[in-house]
Amino acid sequence: MPRPHVVIVGGGFGGLYAAKALRRAPVDVTVIDRRNHHVFQPLLYQVATAGLSAIDIGEPIRRILRRSRNTTVLLGEVVDVSADEVVLASGDAVRFDYLVVAAGAAHSYFGHDEWAEHAPGLKSIEDALDIRRRILSAFEEAELEPDPERRRALLTFVIVGAGPTGAELAGAVAELARHTLEGDFRRFRTSDARILLLEAGDAVVPGYPPSLSAKARRQLERLGVEVRTGSMVTEVSADGVEARGERIEARTVLWAAGVAASPLGEALEAPVDRAGRVQVEPDLTVPGRPNVFVAGDLAAVHQEGRPVPGVAPAAIQMGRHAAAAIRRLVEDGEAPVPFHYVDKGSMATLGRSAAVAQIRGLRLSGFPAWVAWLTVHIFFLIGFRNRLVVLFEWAKAYLTYGRSARLILYHRR
Amino acid sequence: MPRPHVVIVGGGFGGLYAAKALRRAPVDVTVIDRRNHHVFQPLLYQVATAGLSAIDIGEPIRRILRRSRNTTVLLGEVVDVSADEVVLASGDAVRFDYLVVAAGAAHSYFGHDEWAEHAPGLKSIEDALDIRRRILSAFEEAELEPDPERRRALLTFVIVGAGPTGAELAGAVAELARHTLEGDFRRFRTSDARILLLEAGDAVVPGYPPSLSAKARRQLERLGVEVRTGSMVTEVSADGVEARGERIEARTVLWAAGVAASPLGEALEAPVDRAGRVQVEPDLTVPGRPNVFVAGDLAAVHQEGRPVPGVAPAAIQMGRHAAAAIRRLVEDGEAPVPFHYVDKGSMATLGRSAAVAQIRGLRLSGFPAWVAWLTVHIFFLIGFRNRLVVLFEWAKAYLTYGRSARLILYHRR
Repeated sequence: MPRPHVVIVGGGFGGLYAAKALRRAPVDVTVIDRRNHHVFQPLLYQVATAGLSAIDIGEPIRRILRRSRNTTVLLGEVVDVSADEVVLASGDAVRFDYLVVAAGAAHSYFGHDEWAEHAPGLKSIEDALDIRRRILSAFEEAELEPDPERRRALLTFVIVGAGPTGAELAGAVAELARHTLEGDFRRFRTSDARILLLEAGDAVVPGYPPSLSAKARRQLERLGVEVRTGSMVTEVSADGVEARGERIEARTVLWAAGVAASPLGEALEAPVDRAGRVQVEPDLTVPGRPNVFVAGDLAAVHQEGRPVPGVAPAAIQMGRHAAAAIRRLVEDGEAPVPFHYVDKGSMATLGRSAAVAQIRGLRLSGFPAWVAWLTVHIFFLIGFRNRLVVLFEWAKAYLTYGRSARLILYHRR
Repeated sequence: MPRPHVVIVGGGFGGLYAAKALRRAPVDVTVIDRRNHHVFQPLLYQVATAGLSAIDIGEPIRRILRRSRNTTVLLGEVVDVSADEVVLASGDAVRFDYLVVAAGAAHSYFGHDEWAEHAPGLKSIEDALDIRRRILSAFEEAELEPDPERRRALLTFVIVGAGPTGAELAGAVAELARHTLEGDFRRFRTSDARILLLEAGDAVVPGYPPSLSAKARRQLERLGVEVRTGSMVTEVSADGVEARGERIEARTVLWAAGVAASPLGEALEAPVDRAGRVQVEPDLTVPGRPNVFVAGDLAAVHQEGRPVPGVAPAAIQMGRHAAAAIRRLVEDGEAPVPFHYVDKGSMATLGRSAAVAQIRGLRLSGFPAWVAWLTVHIFFLIGFRNRLVVLFEWAKAYLTYGRSARLILYHRR
């Protein structure tokens, strides 16, 4: 009798940890992702701001799972899901007995998809390289621009959305302008660059306690970021944005405001929430489909009345939960138990020695939060090379303010 | 009185060393390149074969020259040269008193430009990432391909041209297939991959003494490369090549056969040779234009009846020569002296402990040549971070056969 076949869609944290947890289970596993690499998303903003190289935060999925002899990795994009098959864009179909859908999320422009080309978001390594190219190219063009007004627009950077990603991006761009690039240009001062962080709500890093939000704001302002809360963006074009009736001329606009779940949620014919996330059962299965699990950003899970956040630890826990449930079903024929999210805390880094962290009851900001952030992120980075090189890059950046990854690739002339 | 303005076109070895040599001269210098980074071209093949990351061999030009306070770096593509101005693609013009043109070379397909899309060459970091994507994607597609014949074509890699670049690429692809990727795929053995090195002439690494050529060939064959000399390619398509009347089905074809100088040579209205290189005066000036110098791969220079090769040390020496000549003209009003190339030797690496080297009278092959190659290349790598990281990567690759840079970016679905 053939062993049950588990198909996992997505090689992010959810899918990867599900696959790892099934390594010794009596099943065959196939992991399908449209990219060949796992991305350590919490550090994407560092690639976007030239602090790290793409390979520092990416690792081939088949490399990570090479010792899982029961696991096959396929490069392909899943476009549909039937009762017992997933269908790839190539037309190939892969049959499954159990399915774990961990396809993640993309950006949402709240119905203004035309803004996407002017204000890229940050979900993949390609996104990060695109943002890096835009930021560095703006400085390059400023060196060539004789007109002071246009130069000013080139040196204005708008980040929309002050969640952790937006706050981290804003802090990193400010450091890039004020320290890293200092002395490299001859016709303007890089510290004249303006970095604006626009947030529709009334606090930066919403979701953190108000005292930490306030501290995050002060730290960002000290780094040179203009923080504007209560500032909803109503228009984005190639030349800038409009917010609260005011026009801001800016050649570089970055989007960190909205999240939309993978369209695969709808292919499951399950109920989805406004962001497209699948409203799963307490055991993470799709209603009416006890052999189909959803994990990570694609799953809408509530616990004690609050949504489980779309962060890496939540995705890891869901992936492991789905794998454990499948093992129980296969090995003992027992029904899954409800998923329980353990909140280990959250943290965001804003710049050199600047961060906020909330770990269980503990609230940290400034240098202690930054050290906590460093430790956790180094620890969780997948792959030995990465940990060592990233540590080295960060040590060097701390000592010199230098950033190594300053190449503009695929420059558009 | 304004200081004389020296414009340098190209941030490769020729242009960079010219700029460095003018750092303390009583001139203003502008370096113009269409990319923001210098590329350490001798290691490009390592990026193409996933051994190194893009940033390990690239460094922003303005970063390298940041301490040259008399030097401005501009990102732009020079498309024309008049009597006293260079014209950028943007339409901007930059006036010069002295001009150093070091715009380098691209691939030549010997009149078959339609082959370019099927058989990319290796001159820029983008080229290297494109080749890496093709090689890694072929293995990924092979894992998905049920048809044995098509799988065989996916696992056949043809490298056209057995000069140093072609030989290095072939050896590195063989190591990638036989060692690095081993165990990562479930549906075929990566060591079944065929690597063919086709050379129209009768020796690999032509230009080396016949005894070293023979040793290079044996080392490549030991790595698993099929070497075919006297094998002129007459057709290249999406599915393979035709050589000496034989059809070879291969989904990946890499081009390392021909070099064509930058079209800027013709814009100088100077005599050019068949490869488009400018036939300069003995002092490297353009005939009839004593204030315009050509350096690097774009210059056709003959010495003792033999052409000076298109290698990094030659470009460096020419760049320095042009700078010294300009200093003499500006400071003392003295005419330039003839350029004299000092051949410090040449070396090519073929794989783990496999290389050939010719240093002055000394001929090395195998492990000693490989160590010599490592030492020289680490020593000349620009930038501290790069040296250390590259050393680390190589040490790790030597111990584990691992290659870190295995990301497929900009995957075409």
